[in-house]
Amino acid sequence: MVKQTQWIKNAANRPVPVKVNGEHVIPFQGVGKYKPSDRKHAPRIPSNIDYPPDGNKQVATLKEALIKAGLHDGMTISTHHHFRNGDYLANMIFDIAHELGIKNLRWFPSASFPCHEHLIPYLEDGTIHHIEGSMNGPLGRFVSEGKMKGVGVLRSHGGRYQAIQDGEVKIDIAVIGAACADPFGNANGLYGPSATGLLGFALADSQYADKVIVVTDNMVSFPCVPWQIQGNYVDYTVEIDKLGNPEKIISGTTRITKSPDRLYLAELTARFCEVTGIIHDGFSFQTGAGGTSLAVGEYFKKIMQQKGIKARFARGGSNKYLVSMLKEGLIEYILDGQTFDLEGVHSMAENPNHVWTSPFTSYNYHSKGNFAGMVDVVILGATEVDVHFNANVVTHSDGYLLHGIGGWQNCLFSKTVILPVPLFRDRIPVVVDEVTTLCGPGELIDVIVTERGIAINPRRTDLLKKVKGSDLPVKTIDELKEEAEKICGKPDKPEFDDQVIAVIKWVDGTVIDAVKKVKKIATTR
Amino acid sequence: MVKQTQWIKNAANRPVPVKVNGEHVIPFQGVGKYKPSDRKHAPRIPSNIDYPPDGNKQVATLKEALIKAGLHDGMTISTHHHFRNGDYLANMIFDIAHELGIKNLRWFPSASFPCHEHLIPYLEDGTIHHIEGSMNGPLGRFVSEGKMKGVGVLRSHGGRYQAIQDGEVKIDIAVIGAACADPFGNANGLYGPSATGLLGFALADSQYADKVIVVTDNMVSFPCVPWQIQGNYVDYTVEIDKLGNPEKIISGTTRITKSPDRLYLAELTARFCEVTGIIHDGFSFQTGAGGTSLAVGEYFKKIMQQKGIKARFARGGSNKYLVSMLKEGLIEYILDGQTFDLEGVHSMAENPNHVWTSPFTSYNYHSKGNFAGMVDVVILGATEVDVHFNANVVTHSDGYLLHGIGGWQNCLFSKTVILPVPLFRDRIPVVVDEVTTLCGPGELIDVIVTERGIAINPRRTDLLKKVKGSDLPVKTIDELKEEAEKICGKPDKPEFDDQVIAVIKWVDGTVIDAVKKVKKIATTR
Repeated sequence: MVKQTQWIKNAANRPVPVKVNGEHVIPFQGVGKYKPSDRKHAPRIPSNIDYPPDGNKQVATLKEALIKAGLHDGMTISTHHHFRNGDYLANMIFDIAHELGIKNLRWFPSASFPCHEHLIPYLEDGTIHHIEGSMNGPLGRFVSEGKMKGVGVLRSHGGRYQAIQDGEVKIDIAVIGAACADPFGNANGLYGPSATGLLGFALADSQYADKVIVVTDNMVSFPCVPWQIQGNYVDYTVEIDKLGNPEKIISGTTRITKSPDRLYLAELTARFCEVTGIIHDGFSFQTGAGGTSLAVGEYFKKIMQQKGIKARFARGGSNKYLVSMLKEGLIEYILDGQTFDLEGVHSMAENPNHVWTSPFTSYNYHSKGNFAGMVDVVILGATEVDVHFNANVVTHSDGYLLHGIGGWQNCLFSKTVILPVPLFRDRIPVVVDEVTTLCGPGELIDVIVTERGIAINPRRTDLLKKVKGSDLPVKTIDELKEEAEKICGKPDKPEFDDQVIAVIKWVDGTVIDAVKKVKKIATTR
Repeated sequence: MVKQTQWIKNAANRPVPVKVNGEHVIPFQGVGKYKPSDRKHAPRIPSNIDYPPDGNKQVATLKEALIKAGLHDGMTISTHHHFRNGDYLANMIFDIAHELGIKNLRWFPSASFPCHEHLIPYLEDGTIHHIEGSMNGPLGRFVSEGKMKGVGVLRSHGGRYQAIQDGEVKIDIAVIGAACADPFGNANGLYGPSATGLLGFALADSQYADKVIVVTDNMVSFPCVPWQIQGNYVDYTVEIDKLGNPEKIISGTTRITKSPDRLYLAELTARFCEVTGIIHDGFSFQTGAGGTSLAVGEYFKKIMQQKGIKARFARGGSNKYLVSMLKEGLIEYILDGQTFDLEGVHSMAENPNHVWTSPFTSYNYHSKGNFAGMVDVVILGATEVDVHFNANVVTHSDGYLLHGIGGWQNCLFSKTVILPVPLFRDRIPVVVDEVTTLCGPGELIDVIVTERGIAINPRRTDLLKKVKGSDLPVKTIDELKEEAEKICGKPDKPEFDDQVIAVIKWVDGTVIDAVKKVKKIATTR
């Protein structure tokens, strides 16, 4: 537990601790203000001398691989979340660590899911000291109740790449689950019962970790093509029976919302993009895989068909809707970071215009530019938005840390950022005075679309000009907030203890906010 | 000029200088003996802050890009040789440097070609201090005559990647010519008038150079797919009129030797592989693009067709012959490092089983294994072979440094290495007492095939056993040497000055041999 935390106010006026898990951190200094002066993390130079001359790095079991990789107390173990809520692998790793009596591990997943509730006993008994990575659902709740020994660190997908590249997080052992691999360690997510499409979230781990283990349930003979993960970075390979539960790894099908309210939100968003000319020939867009986002994509499709317009590219999370647009020629390229259904996986395997990306190409803020800034419009969600257009994606209005950041922060660098959100959820306003947790600074968020009206960030005078004279229900963000309060009343603020339970990193590795322990322990899960 | 060189005998009993161009070097310590204890080169951490938010890094001219990249005296400028003897780009760079009055540059190409004879005045006037990279033809001759200010350093393709990765050579500015690129810097060699297939030789440069400039004569709008070079590593992009002379960039057609002697060498090599069972179902092979090597491939094809055998993969240099085997299903994958004709380029663009590789995946000795060791048999050339199976690929028997190493050293790690060579060339024996320059230690070279017989390295008792009772003309290497001398007489050794003009690096960065200035200046070119 972190005691007697020293606090400092960062550039967003948020108090953040100066040390996290015993290490100094840099407080957020404003968007585009902090510039690193260091050099990238330099892994040890390996030599072929230490690897089998015939390239066969296969060992019998995951346990053997972990022991050979030198698993011991205090190490940092990384995993990735391509298997989502169907993942068996992360649980297996810590079962082994626990069996071996290893303590104080730092678990560094690209995200965790409800299936990882299995690890709570290991957080309690000290096998795992703390988690750095998104903690969706039960683990988030556990952490919010102040039960984790260390402080959680939440990063965006791009921020995770940045942290590894910059040596902010040094990974001792990366365990990469792959749908398809060869004994040398070349791997992809395209083929086999655990197909996930791509392995981008494990890229940085493969490049920078001290030891890298590739685990597959579909070992093929060299070469495994394409090699999304390159065997030249891999120390050991393991074949196991099952990486996960295919039904939960990838949804057989993604579904558009049927809620009339959400459909209206989506339609309004698409109409906004039409009126403002954001939808134009050769444009680009990114929508998520949530029900509302999918619906936005479908409305985009209709507009594009009507106008005879093509998009140069769409950024995925891909799904069958996006794939159908690619097939119809409405999109020239899908630049995909994560496939959400089997149509996405198959399309990526077969269509050369359905391209796998990585958090490096798409999101790393500490590179020579990235793809995010080239996207014309991005449609994102939020748990809360405030009158300064600041937004929250990690905590609920009750203060519980229940979601990860994903690529959300990184996408804020697109040319136009739109958040379609309901004005309230369960009679709790979504548009508020001040967000519980700051994840994205308002200066990067352009438009809030609610079922009661659209608020445009006053910084975007260009957009304000373009909607003039249209029938779009444009309001100020304050008007939206007041409307929400009129209906729901002014919401109670959640009460917090002084204990920091997690910090939120900005895309440049600085700390943009801290999350504290929830005071009143909720009785329901 | 290097004066008063201090020498040391390395593990191959070759005297090598202890310092090269003022920097300490490590003498060769034996195959698999030298293990680095350092960390990889760590480039500066860049930030998106310093790059255009919309991803457009295009500047008007190459000169502007070089000035923006900070071109100044003493820098290391890297280029690659995908444009081979049709390259205009390297010449342009040094024309600009000369015009700007820049001095003492280190030119670090992956190879140079006769077209770079253009640079000799810049070597004379001090614009270029020295070249590190293969020097084919006129530049090799210039260097052999002791006219370059510094000492040349020759590395294999894998050794070049290793040297960059390990920080042995720090590149200030990498200039990457690409057949196709977008303004962000994503690039490939697949499409456009200067198509070369792939850009693998520029990979390390893009990853580790301080500044990276991508130059294209075919700028497309983002995204340039596939991105063999990733724009996230690129500082500036430039569009120019022409990268090179397409007719010389890539041969319209590759041709099998018509010489009966060479065809016999090729047939004998293939028969050796048949008799010893090297050609078996699922095997793998690498042959070069020289006339004899191509012929070996064709004999392999016949044997495979007769026996109904498929290869799991072939390593390229690809060409129409290999492509036809891929199409016919005789090869499952081509793992290609360099395309030698247009059929190769087209196949790589269209066939997902024709895969582009890089010196990292294929050859880097300082990674966690590489592809070379997984190849069952590799067919290579040599200018000389000695009775200890040592071989030379860089100097002629007259002592002139006229060739690069290419992937030759790296390929020596294949399971079986065969050198089909004529017993003599122009009445000068190829099999000799001691090679003029040691490029590959005999312990890694398994078989010498000549038109007068096949010598098997005594270390390969397995192969010796397998040929017993066959009709193959197996002899000892000494017998071959004596036969050559009987025909040609004992050849005069070339005479050298004391001046070191180049060193030959081994795959691990150590110095395996040195090349000295030729005493008697040849009168013919």
